[in-house]
Amino acid sequence: MARNGRRNANRPGRDGAVAQLPWRTIANPYAPLEILSADQLEAIHEASMEILEDIGIEFLGDDALDLLRRGGAAVDRASRLVRIDRGLVAEALRTAPSQVELTPRNPAHRITLGGNRINFSLVAGPPNVHDGLRGRRAGNYRDYCDLLRLAQSLNVVHCLGGQVVAPVELPAETRHLDCYLANVTYTDRVFNCSAIGAERALDGIEIAAIARGRTPDDLIESPAVLTIVNVNSPRRIDGPMGEGLIAMARHGQVVVVTPFTLMGAMAPVTLAAALAQQNAEALAGVVLTQLARPGAPVVYGAFTSNVDMKSGAPAFGTPENAKSILAGGQLARRYRLPYRSSNSSASNAVDAQAAYESQMTLWAAVMGHANLVYHGAGWMEGGLTVSFEKIVLDAEMLQMMTEVLVPIQVDEDSLGLDAIREVGPGGHFFGAAHTLARYETAFYKPMLADWRNFETWREAGGQTATQRATALWQRLLADYQPPPTDPAVAEALDAFVRRRKEEIARRAA
Amino acid sequence: MARNGRRNANRPGRDGAVAQLPWRTIANPYAPLEILSADQLEAIHEASMEILEDIGIEFLGDDALDLLRRGGAAVDRASRLVRIDRGLVAEALRTAPSQVELTPRNPAHRITLGGNRINFSLVAGPPNVHDGLRGRRAGNYRDYCDLLRLAQSLNVVHCLGGQVVAPVELPAETRHLDCYLANVTYTDRVFNCSAIGAERALDGIEIAAIARGRTPDDLIESPAVLTIVNVNSPRRIDGPMGEGLIAMARHGQVVVVTPFTLMGAMAPVTLAAALAQQNAEALAGVVLTQLARPGAPVVYGAFTSNVDMKSGAPAFGTPENAKSILAGGQLARRYRLPYRSSNSSASNAVDAQAAYESQMTLWAAVMGHANLVYHGAGWMEGGLTVSFEKIVLDAEMLQMMTEVLVPIQVDEDSLGLDAIREVGPGGHFFGAAHTLARYETAFYKPMLADWRNFETWREAGGQTATQRATALWQRLLADYQPPPTDPAVAEALDAFVRRRKEEIARRAA
Repeated sequence: MARNGRRNANRPGRDGAVAQLPWRTIANPYAPLEILSADQLEAIHEASMEILEDIGIEFLGDDALDLLRRGGAAVDRASRLVRIDRGLVAEALRTAPSQVELTPRNPAHRITLGGNRINFSLVAGPPNVHDGLRGRRAGNYRDYCDLLRLAQSLNVVHCLGGQVVAPVELPAETRHLDCYLANVTYTDRVFNCSAIGAERALDGIEIAAIARGRTPDDLIESPAVLTIVNVNSPRRIDGPMGEGLIAMARHGQVVVVTPFTLMGAMAPVTLAAALAQQNAEALAGVVLTQLARPGAPVVYGAFTSNVDMKSGAPAFGTPENAKSILAGGQLARRYRLPYRSSNSSASNAVDAQAAYESQMTLWAAVMGHANLVYHGAGWMEGGLTVSFEKIVLDAEMLQMMTEVLVPIQVDEDSLGLDAIREVGPGGHFFGAAHTLARYETAFYKPMLADWRNFETWREAGGQTATQRATALWQRLLADYQPPPTDPAVAEALDAFVRRRKEEIARRAA
Repeated sequence: MARNGRRNANRPGRDGAVAQLPWRTIANPYAPLEILSADQLEAIHEASMEILEDIGIEFLGDDALDLLRRGGAAVDRASRLVRIDRGLVAEALRTAPSQVELTPRNPAHRITLGGNRINFSLVAGPPNVHDGLRGRRAGNYRDYCDLLRLAQSLNVVHCLGGQVVAPVELPAETRHLDCYLANVTYTDRVFNCSAIGAERALDGIEIAAIARGRTPDDLIESPAVLTIVNVNSPRRIDGPMGEGLIAMARHGQVVVVTPFTLMGAMAPVTLAAALAQQNAEALAGVVLTQLARPGAPVVYGAFTSNVDMKSGAPAFGTPENAKSILAGGQLARRYRLPYRSSNSSASNAVDAQAAYESQMTLWAAVMGHANLVYHGAGWMEGGLTVSFEKIVLDAEMLQMMTEVLVPIQVDEDSLGLDAIREVGPGGHFFGAAHTLARYETAFYKPMLADWRNFETWREAGGQTATQRATALWQRLLADYQPPPTDPAVAEALDAFVRRRKEEIARRAA
């Protein structure tokens, strides 16, 4: 229980700073919600074994095919279809760790994936960015850095995802270097490598190592970075993704295998079938990590939602999405693997829909014992845009979830019978000693919610939560404090990025 | 599983009508979330026994004091403090039913409180009303009727609460008659009686009986109405509430005993103490119902949230609120009583805050196995205003919750291995036979969510969910169909209301 930190004394902050909860290690002390019966779970497992053993998974990369063949899988070179028997799966699950600790440049911001721990990441991958002042625009490096500053300012954002927005004005071949450098300059949190090819993954590992004053070899025993390997569902792991996976696993870094199983499009229209496919695809990736390096940390990723069958548009935060998140947790626990889920919404605005869709996925993730809630803050438009306001809205919702996870204290002191005896029928507790001793830290203090009465709220401008979020992110950015960096480390990072950019330019020339 | 109805074929509706799920009986097939350990639950129970046995509950009404004295409680006539020993509590819990069925004028809209059933009510009690076209205004009879029409048009609103808004222009002494008459004219659902005095309760029972073509005596074996008895916390049940409770119980109608335990104000600042107080107060009301009539249906109500300790303003949808809802469910289950919770928010606008605060209470209610989610649709401003848009927003969120409660189907057909075999790696399932046979009913079709891509959405006006809700309630009202009423019943209802208004006028003269 102490792992959730001392009572929720929201940090009052510097003068006028945004009040928020301190950085904490979050654990879910409650039992997970089991949405599938034991028989149903086994039926889905068995169906996924049939997919792996009989139908097959396509691996487009030669390295992956070689590893799988040498590992004992049945590889059809012509079709690139690989059939993996359950013995090979069992062997991979025997060596895959059930828990992994990631250490960023600031060891105080270590995170653990596994058990009942839960961590929230910044959104990853949107091509566009939006805020209430400047509207919607293409991703760019200036916004990239501001979004990192915002994440660093929020204690409930435990790690970064992949690129928080694509800085599209930067050269595509070296953009990842600029992003990694910004990650370790503006934040001190765990970040993501790109797994599109081995080179980008290795650059990320190198930068994480330099930022910690270590070598990539040191990081094998002390992982620093993670990557998402998306399966190109159905049943395909493409060449660059396979390469990225192998590079990360060989260097002992965390691979999150996440099938992209949108029901009705990239997966069947029924939840059972989509879960069976998701499971087969995730386990295929898990097997590849363990063939690359037995014991390499790997996370079971789930992203099963549905499309709108009228338009084919992806939908998120749906009831089906919530159920798949809960079921995915049961599958991950069956294999004793850490579990990754997401906080998602399809809404085009930071509005009530954005909030309720995100809540659907958040509650499901928490009740499903997700260890990593990817896209934890900032996702909108089904992932096509990162929003400054949504980051603030999500941070509030994440903080609230972490407070739900602080167990109720029940002891003589908290049962307060003396206070109940002291206050007469129909009286009030405002002045009771029991209240006065505790009122400053008794309750969660919101960052975004406005609890004033209607008249006061209206006189103060009658702003919606989204309008208030605009003011909040500006305040957070104004108060941003960069993490202290050793000048020698900063110099080494710059030198590495300079050298790598030169190499890439030479190769292109 | 069949109790949740056949797969979620959202009713397409008449031409252009709002698509929604059909009326269904909702059950929660999953295990409740146990937030308290068994020891903690017992400690709270023991503390509440000490409150009941040693500290005492004040009953301001003479009838209640008489019943309690004759039932064996220790009554101090001077202070009106009543001490109830645990034997008397146990005896009451022995006779109180664990489940009760309520039958409104349309028997197809019966609801059951108890077990794993879950029902959502319309909001009750706000003095004000708001919509996006006309703004905020005082409650009035015209809005009262429109709000009923809206509720009747929404299949997920299983019953009415107390007055959906106060029709303040009507005479206070007879207003309840106009409201009851509207309830059975514009809707065919279970409604609430006022329990402020016996007379209003009895008028409600009479009107419910006439609407069903029965007598009040017939309703003893077939309850039709319910009432909320709010404890005037701490530890006071006032005179009129006690009278209303006794009248309802004597006539076999459902009493929902709900302590008004806002932590820091009407209850101690700690969750454990507030829960102990809530429990003692709720059980005191339960005892009174069973003394009035052993076997009378009674529901364990919980309303424990916190106040903003800066301003004293009530807060809802907070983490503490969510935890108290979960814990309250455990207490109700300990006593095998049906459980009532709420869907609440303190937001002054139908915005992201309104959505996430409501979601916090909804998920807690569902995970805590609430049987009645009071204020299920329409509540804003901490209950001071009913909003047309919030009703639509809530209806969408409630529908989504009911879909989460439809268990995942896992069988050969739904596991779809043939479809997975048929679609090649990297392909898609849009045209698969498995998809084509199911796509129309596979997924929840939202009422409010907009899943179009950003460009299409923007070109169509770029409306937020709240703006779309304004169009939706207008459409629902335009399509409203009054429930058919036997003219003889309508005449009998009118005659009753006329007679009662005359009696009340004569008495006042």
